[in-house]
Amino acid sequence: MPQIEVKELRRIATSILLDSGVPGPLAELQADLLLEAELRGVPSHGLLRLRRIVERIGNGCANPTATGQQVWRREGYLEVDGEMGLGPVVADAALQAVCARARRTGIAVAAIRNSNHIGMLGFYAERVAGAGQTILAFSTSEALVHPWGGRKAMLGTNPIAIGVPTGSDPFVMDTATSIVSMGEVHDYANRGAALPPGWALDGKGDPTTDAEAAKSGALAPFGGAKGYALGLAFGLLTSSLAGAALGRDVRGTLDSEAVCNKGDLFIVIDGPTTALDGYLEMLRQTEPAHGVDQVLIPGERGRACRAERLRDGVPLADSLWRDLQQLAGETGYKGA
Amino acid sequence: MPQIEVKELRRIATSILLDSGVPGPLAELQADLLLEAELRGVPSHGLLRLRRIVERIGNGCANPTATGQQVWRREGYLEVDGEMGLGPVVADAALQAVCARARRTGIAVAAIRNSNHIGMLGFYAERVAGAGQTILAFSTSEALVHPWGGRKAMLGTNPIAIGVPTGSDPFVMDTATSIVSMGEVHDYANRGAALPPGWALDGKGDPTTDAEAAKSGALAPFGGAKGYALGLAFGLLTSSLAGAALGRDVRGTLDSEAVCNKGDLFIVIDGPTTALDGYLEMLRQTEPAHGVDQVLIPGERGRACRAERLRDGVPLADSLWRDLQQLAGETGYKGA
Repeated sequence: MPQIEVKELRRIATSILLDSGVPGPLAELQADLLLEAELRGVPSHGLLRLRRIVERIGNGCANPTATGQQVWRREGYLEVDGEMGLGPVVADAALQAVCARARRTGIAVAAIRNSNHIGMLGFYAERVAGAGQTILAFSTSEALVHPWGGRKAMLGTNPIAIGVPTGSDPFVMDTATSIVSMGEVHDYANRGAALPPGWALDGKGDPTTDAEAAKSGALAPFGGAKGYALGLAFGLLTSSLAGAALGRDVRGTLDSEAVCNKGDLFIVIDGPTTALDGYLEMLRQTEPAHGVDQVLIPGERGRACRAERLRDGVPLADSLWRDLQQLAGETGYKGA
Repeated sequence: MPQIEVKELRRIATSILLDSGVPGPLAELQADLLLEAELRGVPSHGLLRLRRIVERIGNGCANPTATGQQVWRREGYLEVDGEMGLGPVVADAALQAVCARARRTGIAVAAIRNSNHIGMLGFYAERVAGAGQTILAFSTSEALVHPWGGRKAMLGTNPIAIGVPTGSDPFVMDTATSIVSMGEVHDYANRGAALPPGWALDGKGDPTTDAEAAKSGALAPFGGAKGYALGLAFGLLTSSLAGAALGRDVRGTLDSEAVCNKGDLFIVIDGPTTALDGYLEMLRQTEPAHGVDQVLIPGERGRACRAERLRDGVPLADSLWRDLQQLAGETGYKGA
């Protein structure tokens, strides 16, 4: 697996976007979002997504210059029509507005529709919590998850991220409400490996460990009935306020042809913050279970991975590295 | 098991509270909260709790007349010192304030400290969503849950409730982030039944199926590492903003002697609502898995149970019914 320097990856990703008509600062933001996922060890939300973004721009499903139309419906309530802009571009503009507003009002929310794939939610949570505010971030997706007790995908992977200032590095957790991502199922299929039982149903709705069969089926919600309830709640909350599509009507984060109709929701709270780092350190120092090295704090493995990859470069699958170079050739990038 | 009419339960619970010095409307609210849990089949948050409330009032850990001191720190941010008031009394007063404020500002939050046990969060979510607003409700508790990969209880059961208007009955989900409640473990112990593997650790931190041993141990977070991350995030978010205690420092929801230092958090959003009932009906109609009757919508089993018990009465454990009558005798209630 080639290990590529971060600077080089940033350069190539930004250039590909520039060559696709994305203005400089917007291209950098979209590239940064994808790169952060690679740095933190979440390749399913990384550079793999770049080809689709370029195709979506080419097909008119993503507007490379739009930053979204923002309307303050009420003093703390921002309604955003993303105007088919790039997900992180629209999200970042909305976040700047609600973070500033929350400094005055104590809390503000942005409900975003008609925007493209927003990527790893932890990216936004880390920025906001790092700057001293508390954030809850939600997004919806295509139906990939079956309801608990059901046979068909009817829910998005409906992720949540929560960021809380702690006194030192912010606490950031970011998880989908599916037991695993569809990207991971594809990865198992590519390696010809069997899925653990309980992860997925096949296209007919029967439990399967065949990763190939699961690709046309459904993922389980994490944590059984409770995870299903949470995933459904996050999805309803977000779609309802954003005015976005629901369940099997959602399109546009996994294809290059459909206008994206999912929703995003950011709640930013500017409250008095308590030092949490003492408690988090106690958690880290808790005696671990047999076979466990240390109790982990969510987000810290990704942060450690980031530090390592900033130093040593990012390991990319051969095929992805070749595809990035090919994409650069197609869009006109000539190298550094 | 005696089946008691709701009217009679409300009368006896309210009278016990009145006789303990709780003013009329406050006594009715506290009684209603406990009764709603019985009606919805959540006895762990029901009338079982009444004796402790009375003892806490007697011991000066709960102030029967306080409704909480509310300070609007910012336009959308309500800080509440509960003044040791009864949980639902302080919560209801805070919710009335934030719901009214959210109608003007679109979103508002209440962070509550120094209040008593707030009971079933779904109670509040149902009211707010039933009146057309969206709500996220959080509360913290004594450390009963072990971090994923750890051997000791370090987290509260940190529940969440989410309520969303749908166009017909509101969607309401309400769940702890432990795999099961400590009340249920006590119930297994009382029946001499073995716990399912994976539910709990004993006092030494080893996995156990012995319910008696688990009582002094720790509950597992639901859904493994993801549920741990969510429970931790909900706890940090709530404690940080409320200025409440963390982890093993939390006291006062399971005893009658300590001032309660957990925190509660309500976020109320007044946004445009989308009809969700069509999608929920599609979920209900999804083909069920083998051995499953129907895909369930969170909250609906409780609602059906409520309708049945309003009609037929509430089945109470003999011991609880006797204890309620004894408590009524102690506080002076003479019956209807």
